[in-house]
Amino acid sequence: MKAAIILGSQSDKATMKKAADVLRELSIEFSSRVVSAHRSPELLEKIIAGMEQDGTEVIIAGAGLAAHLPGVIASKTLIPVIGVPLASGALNGVDALYSIVQMPKSVPVATVGVDNAANAAYLAAEILGIKYPEIKKKLTSLRTKTQEDLSKDSVIDLQ
Amino acid sequence: MKAAIILGSQSDKATMKKAADVLRELSIEFSSRVVSAHRSPELLEKIIAGMEQDGTEVIIAGAGLAAHLPGVIASKTLIPVIGVPLASGALNGVDALYSIVQMPKSVPVATVGVDNAANAAYLAAEILGIKYPEIKKKLTSLRTKTQEDLSKDSVIDLQ
Amino acid sequence: MKAAIILGSQSDKATMKKAADVLRELSIEFSSRVVSAHRSPELLEKIIAGMEQDGTEVIIAGAGLAAHLPGVIASKTLIPVIGVPLASGALNGVDALYSIVQMPKSVPVATVGVDNAANAAYLAAEILGIKYPEIKKKLTSLRTKTQEDLSKDSVIDLQ
Amino acid sequence: MKAAIILGSQSDKATMKKAADVLRELSIEFSSRVVSAHRSPELLEKIIAGMEQDGTEVIIAGAGLAAHLPGVIASKTLIPVIGVPLASGALNGVDALYSIVQMPKSVPVATVGVDNAANAAYLAAEILGIKYPEIKKKLTSLRTKTQEDLSKDSVIDLQ
Amino acid sequence: MKAAIILGSQSDKATMKKAADVLRELSIEFSSRVVSAHRSPELLEKIIAGMEQDGTEVIIAGAGLAAHLPGVIASKTLIPVIGVPLASGALNGVDALYSIVQMPKSVPVATVGVDNAANAAYLAAEILGIKYPEIKKKLTSLRTKTQEDLSKDSVIDLQ
Amino acid sequence: MKAAIILGSQSDKATMKKAADVLRELSIEFSSRVVSAHRSPELLEKIIAGMEQDGTEVIIAGAGLAAHLPGVIASKTLIPVIGVPLASGALNGVDALYSIVQMPKSVPVATVGVDNAANAAYLAAEILGIKYPEIKKKLTSLRTKTQEDLSKDSVIDLQ
Amino acid sequence: MKAAIILGSQSDKATMKKAADVLRELSIEFSSRVVSAHRSPELLEKIIAGMEQDGTEVIIAGAGLAAHLPGVIASKTLIPVIGVPLASGALNGVDALYSIVQMPKSVPVATVGVDNAANAAYLAAEILGIKYPEIKKKLTSLRTKTQEDLSKDSVIDLQ
Amino acid sequence: MKAAIILGSQSDKATMKKAADVLRELSIEFSSRVVSAHRSPELLEKIIAGMEQDGTEVIIAGAGLAAHLPGVIASKTLIPVIGVPLASGALNGVDALYSIVQMPKSVPVATVGVDNAANAAYLAAEILGIKYPEIKKKLTSLRTKTQEDLSKDSVIDLQ
Repeated sequence: MKAAIILGSQSDKATMKKAADVLRELSIEFSSRVVSAHRSPELLEKIIAGMEQDGTEVIIAGAGLAAHLPGVIASKTLIPVIGVPLASGALNGVDALYSIVQMPKSVPVATVGVDNAANAAYLAAEILGIKYPEIKKKLTSLRTKTQEDLSKDSVIDLQ
Repeated sequence: MKAAIILGSQSDKATMKKAADVLRELSIEFSSRVVSAHRSPELLEKIIAGMEQDGTEVIIAGAGLAAHLPGVIASKTLIPVIGVPLASGALNGVDALYSIVQMPKSVPVATVGVDNAANAAYLAAEILGIKYPEIKKKLTSLRTKTQEDLSKDSVIDLQ
Repeated sequence: MKAAIILGSQSDKATMKKAADVLRELSIEFSSRVVSAHRSPELLEKIIAGMEQDGTEVIIAGAGLAAHLPGVIASKTLIPVIGVPLASGALNGVDALYSIVQMPKSVPVATVGVDNAANAAYLAAEILGIKYPEIKKKLTSLRTKTQEDLSKDSVIDLQ
Repeated sequence: MKAAIILGSQSDKATMKKAADVLRELSIEFSSRVVSAHRSPELLEKIIAGMEQDGTEVIIAGAGLAAHLPGVIASKTLIPVIGVPLASGALNGVDALYSIVQMPKSVPVATVGVDNAANAAYLAAEILGIKYPEIKKKLTSLRTKTQEDLSKDSVIDLQ
Repeated sequence: MKAAIILGSQSDKATMKKAADVLRELSIEFSSRVVSAHRSPELLEKIIAGMEQDGTEVIIAGAGLAAHLPGVIASKTLIPVIGVPLASGALNGVDALYSIVQMPKSVPVATVGVDNAANAAYLAAEILGIKYPEIKKKLTSLRTKTQEDLSKDSVIDLQ
Repeated sequence: MKAAIILGSQSDKATMKKAADVLRELSIEFSSRVVSAHRSPELLEKIIAGMEQDGTEVIIAGAGLAAHLPGVIASKTLIPVIGVPLASGALNGVDALYSIVQMPKSVPVATVGVDNAANAAYLAAEILGIKYPEIKKKLTSLRTKTQEDLSKDSVIDLQ
Repeated sequence: MKAAIILGSQSDKATMKKAADVLRELSIEFSSRVVSAHRSPELLEKIIAGMEQDGTEVIIAGAGLAAHLPGVIASKTLIPVIGVPLASGALNGVDALYSIVQMPKSVPVATVGVDNAANAAYLAAEILGIKYPEIKKKLTSLRTKTQEDLSKDSVIDLQ
Repeated sequence: MKAAIILGSQSDKATMKKAADVLRELSIEFSSRVVSAHRSPELLEKIIAGMEQDGTEVIIAGAGLAAHLPGVIASKTLIPVIGVPLASGALNGVDALYSIVQMPKSVPVATVGVDNAANAAYLAAEILGIKYPEIKKKLTSLRTKTQEDLSKDSVIDLQ
């Protein structure tokens, strides 16, 4: 098992599924769990301990509002943590973005765009690609294919 | 011992001292510790466990940047936690304010104004005042005195 | 009677009802009133005076826009005031958040997240729990139960 | 007596003095008081009652942070209230601006720019100028003079 | 004729109508025009000149986006201008609020809350009330009635 | 060929079409392409090289989120680039606005309002009007006509 | 004469001088004037009329706070207007940025970064470069030279 | 060679040096270059090509203002890019944060806090630690040591 996706709440499923879709497309194995940093902190510690042992090499964590989940995970493991700020509530994700990205010295979270769970998965793949050439190869093919696809239909009719 | 002041970092001392000054003025006993939610999470748990046992009844926690400290404490105890967002860094406290106030359902942090550690202490006193009439009495005297003082010199010369 | 819920406007009912639901779940008695800090200031003073006499020990006040209600109450009583910023209008609750949390020295409002009336009630319960062991006990059970519930279904299928 | 200047705090004196300077330049009589909406609410009510009786026709109120002062005054009188948001504290006046301008229906505050106490006085003069032709005349002369002065030296050397 | 309502665009009609409703309720005569500060500047000057002559004593101007309309009017007349920032477009009225309230020294605009056209009318009434006792009387009755109405039904059932 | 419209994504078509409509109304020839600064950078370079050769004299580029497209184009050509920030995603265009307008010294992008693709076309026309009198003439007629149209129906009934 | 620099206030001189420096470096003639959109509107109209006649082909206008100057100019001429938002006052240029960039349909202002007067001049040069090959040639040399200079010393020692 | 540090400008040296210090402390080899995404795009491509060949496995890129540098690098390589938003200019790093974090789908940048170059290096180390056990070991020692150090002096005297 190489990656893990952690959701702060069941309600984040639709957005975080986009990370799972990209990981599957790139044939990267992953586990997925819902766990709240604040409402089930002991479960979270157990899950992190499990990830240390089962060989998880990168963690994607999505959370909204105060969004402490990615940072709390990062404080308890040295597996790289990718944080996805989610736009739930009235402040529309600015709260989650600031809470995730502004971590103190020595406990970083690799933050991606608001609601951009797909990019968390692409970043996970780039990170794993350092060690696993087959993942880098798949990413390279995908990028080449994307560029070819985009090149085909670049003319657009603005009528 | 009735109150506790927790700082996220040694650099928050000057601001958080204002909470201590108010508690002393109101004769409220307090302990004070520096502990990082992310850089020393186990120490934090030990400190929280200690507070559960030594009779701490209200906790004041100040933190800047991602400012998870008050929320992480609140996730591990049901002692009321008062959070003080600190204006360190380029985002000037808006990051800390959002990170502290936007907590998820059932894990509240009582948030006061940016850098307003004095108000955290006044709020702690009001909370303790429910149980301890002598604290409420001191608060009442102080407020009466403030009102009298402010009334004396309300005329101002704008030359 | 132990708690009070004050709404700034009839239109805040749907959001503030979530505070009432939590208080009921925790068997905390409460009164509830609608009163505008600006449009019926005398009524507000009468209500505050009444709360001082009927033994109200914690006040939850929700308001949107300039949202002075919690602060004005806090200026007239030393009963702790919990403020709920409501996201009405174009500024989406940032206005209410700043107006409620940035109170001047010695007149604190315990601020919770935008529209998060449930958390105001949980905070009220934690505060009352200092004096009333039965409330703390109920909160503890609830938190334990929440943790158990969340632990059961933490595996999620992101298909 | 025609105008009144109310400061939320002694520390606002330097900024609010600019309002006094403009009123003096336009020969508009004014009283000036320091009074906190939250820390001395009874004094504030006495002052407002006094202004109703002494013929005050327009009120300038400056405040920082939660900045409830202008709104609280507006809730207790129908004398027009001009609010000056002051940039004290980490949020740099955005908090005061939102707290002053976003008043509920039927209790308006005429808000001017952050720290722009001079404009509060000019606005007061325009308002009084409806009733008092001599004030309008002075304003007209001043504006004409300003335009003439600015016209003289409009060429600038950007070396 | 005592008041004037100026709209920056036909699309602002629904919001600005609330100002007209309040003025009618208070029996204040008003004219109403749609004119763009930028797309029909000459028409605007003609309209302002007309208002100087027909006895207009207070101007309410609503505009969205860059929202220069109230400020441009204020630069061409000493009749007090009340500005209503309108929440059109992606920035949701923050753009209009800043553009209207942050006027330079000596050219103030009396700014009210975003989309709060009703308050512009109430403010206009308070301003006219300085000169016209019958308007102040109507405002006083209205406020008294509002307070009585709000006092009647302040108890609310949060079931 | 005088102008070019570049879209960062197919999903920007509806908004950017408004630029095309204005260019057509002013009889300005233009090409239109969809190309991502990040996902097809080589195609972008080929397109820019093509524009250098086919006589393109002004480029309109619309993009959302990080919105690097206009700036990347500006770094590779000295044809003036007009940037249109698009309000896609949770941050509602503030992200795109900052990314487009805050370009470093010597690589400017002429930025217009969020989603205001029509204004990009008007600006392009003004720029081309310096060299091509017939375009300036058409712009002048259009502006005169707009002013006449707006003057006709400036009275509005706010019932 | 090809370009014009307009300042909203004498206090903007230090920042706007950077535009003059770039124009001089590129041998582009320019006039420079200080004129307030609000405090000397008639002078502004005279200056704009003068620019229409003296062959000014592009206008750079810098302003802070409500920053209406560039937009007001754009409403009175079809010469392209480049707006420079200036960071004066507590809102630090966000006010000026929004006021300048969010112009209504058909009256665009080409906005550059906050305080980035140099970029206004570079943009002016690119615009004039469409018509004047010698300006484009100078810009091309300058850009080539910049690239060569930057290439020489790209290695940096982070000791 | 395992890591690379890229600065957008010589003026970012003091802040970005903190990344170098951490890499040195962890004995991670790195190259360092100054190169502008916009002012020397060809040099940037050459440097990226060089990094693909010399075995660079993670890139740290710091930039202020529009801050396109990290994103442009990410569009040209699949080596993971860590972006450091720098607080230069009036918008104080919010511009750089949004420009770096809000990247489009499939071209992620791992964003850390504003001016937090140290965290970029810690994140780089965590990422390299997946492949290189000796780096993970060093990180683990460092974290253990930090926790021990912080535990020693957690009591603080708030006199």
